[in-house]
Amino acid sequence: MRDVLAEWQPVVDDAIAELLPRDVDEAYLDEWFGPASHRYDPEAIQRALSDPVWDLLDRGGKRWRAVVCLLLLDGFGADPHEHLAYACIPEVLHNGTIIVDDVEDEAEIRRGETALHHRYGQDVALNAGNAMYFLPLKVVGKNPAGLDSGTQLAMYEMLMDELNRTHLGQGMDIHWHRNREATVSEAEYLEMCACKTGCLGRIVARLPAILTDQPDEVEHAIAKYAEEMSIAFQIGDDILDIESTIEGNTEFGKAFGNDIREGKRTLMAIHALSEADPAEADRLATILHADENTREEIVDAIGILQSTDSIEYARERALEFAGSARAHLREVPLDEERSDQLASFTEFVIDRDV
Amino acid sequence: MRDVLAEWQPVVDDAIAELLPRDVDEAYLDEWFGPASHRYDPEAIQRALSDPVWDLLDRGGKRWRAVVCLLLLDGFGADPHEHLAYACIPEVLHNGTIIVDDVEDEAEIRRGETALHHRYGQDVALNAGNAMYFLPLKVVGKNPAGLDSGTQLAMYEMLMDELNRTHLGQGMDIHWHRNREATVSEAEYLEMCACKTGCLGRIVARLPAILTDQPDEVEHAIAKYAEEMSIAFQIGDDILDIESTIEGNTEFGKAFGNDIREGKRTLMAIHALSEADPAEADRLATILHADENTREEIVDAIGILQSTDSIEYARERALEFAGSARAHLREVPLDEERSDQLASFTEFVIDRDV
Repeated sequence: MRDVLAEWQPVVDDAIAELLPRDVDEAYLDEWFGPASHRYDPEAIQRALSDPVWDLLDRGGKRWRAVVCLLLLDGFGADPHEHLAYACIPEVLHNGTIIVDDVEDEAEIRRGETALHHRYGQDVALNAGNAMYFLPLKVVGKNPAGLDSGTQLAMYEMLMDELNRTHLGQGMDIHWHRNREATVSEAEYLEMCACKTGCLGRIVARLPAILTDQPDEVEHAIAKYAEEMSIAFQIGDDILDIESTIEGNTEFGKAFGNDIREGKRTLMAIHALSEADPAEADRLATILHADENTREEIVDAIGILQSTDSIEYARERALEFAGSARAHLREVPLDEERSDQLASFTEFVIDRDV
Repeated sequence: MRDVLAEWQPVVDDAIAELLPRDVDEAYLDEWFGPASHRYDPEAIQRALSDPVWDLLDRGGKRWRAVVCLLLLDGFGADPHEHLAYACIPEVLHNGTIIVDDVEDEAEIRRGETALHHRYGQDVALNAGNAMYFLPLKVVGKNPAGLDSGTQLAMYEMLMDELNRTHLGQGMDIHWHRNREATVSEAEYLEMCACKTGCLGRIVARLPAILTDQPDEVEHAIAKYAEEMSIAFQIGDDILDIESTIEGNTEFGKAFGNDIREGKRTLMAIHALSEADPAEADRLATILHADENTREEIVDAIGILQSTDSIEYARERALEFAGSARAHLREVPLDEERSDQLASFTEFVIDRDV
């Protein structure tokens, strides 16, 4: 799988550069956004959009969203090389959400370097992030695949559905970690993951299904594969945060006990809050919702997660979702090689920084 | 015109409440966003989306974007009451951009009250603002007007075109006021207005034209009316900022010399920078790009705008654009009453807080 990613990454980057060139000029602006009414300032757009976005892209990321999209296109019988622009849609959207999320979370670091809003200013970063919510959607209208209007419309509707739900998930997540009194059930946590993380995954999967005119049940199955893989990924990500804190190994770029400090309602926290005795549960809730945490509090909180077997519980649930994702994949008519590659993703995505 | 606005405002607000109810429940979430995969948390979505957005809406705003949309629908022969959801699109988009702009500009006050990011937190405000970029676009897919797929597609493409250009305009504006060395021509300033302010106006105008299947030249003419009216509005807004400072009357909610403090490249500033003698121009540039300004510096900067007749120049240009907007309106086949109402808007929008 890593080979496939390494092989495609430069191809994907070239395709992204067609959507947003490293060097912005008037010809690009005219062609991509339509002729100016008066006169564009390409230098300003270069520095306000292209520079920060390429700074982020050049910091890494394996472009797996684009690559899975291309593998699926191939699996559904379309030539991936002819549809590179479509595969950039979820990738550019994802990088846009990263920029905005970092402002929302007041992050300092992204991919080992200064977060964009600290490097370019909050206004530049936010506008660039938001621009990346719309820039790739123009691909549907440009229609390089020559789709009929019904298929183009289906693609817009899919994108609007998923991008709406992304914001529901983010809203739930933010509300919970800001409000101690919020009670969160496991089903609500899973919905938050399905929306916040899953919807971008669903775009990765539904886009090639729509483009190649798959039957509804195939589109549904591949969307479920992506959604449940994303949930497994999110749970895995949360486990990694705790484990790297336990191991004193916070090198993957986050602070010691990061999620606990942020008060995140992870599946582990939800499980521990319901399984611990009332005094311990109250202690955990207090630590999660304190403005600041001492090292001792972080250690205490982790102790409560451990005494309720919450880390192990979360790991089992993540594995269940990964298994369920693979089951959905088996409903999709793909050749064995593609199917195996996509199944292996359900383990791969537990890895960080993809 | 004020009567028309007052008459429609509660109707528009009811229509917005169909898109985003004041009280969010599971039935609404199911219906509007599709069934949950696990379980929505309506309370969280209420507090993270609906509460902040309705807080902003309830502070005022005359909903002129929705009302102009409805007047045009009526003028083009459609029943405005049957298309209220469409008229909400530009209105909700506009309020979303306000929330995000206030974060970008680090604004303290909006419509006389605490800006949303200060009241609800930056994360809640940003996510709510961004959610409002996508929530109204679902109307196109819901298709209450029963449009054919070609018309729905045209509407999505129009929205993507305009929302992309909005972010170009904002990017240009931000880049300029952050960078003293940026040289800005009048044509570039007008493009920034056409994109940043004009594109939402163009949505107001193009949406009813597309919905009622007007010929391309009618859609083009009404879009130009809206774009040029928006440019006139933007210039007028900048003049108002300076004049209220001169008159010591900053009651419309901004600080003394607000735009000068922000270093905004207004048409007045651009004109003065090119018309003043080099020493004065340098002094103005220095004041605009200083992190802080004394009262004396603000007064100096205004003196330079006055000595170069830049305020008068900007006013003339605004009036020209308003006149040109009315000329475009005359190309559009509308009955006299509608045409007069829309023409009167070219003066009305110079007013604040609409």
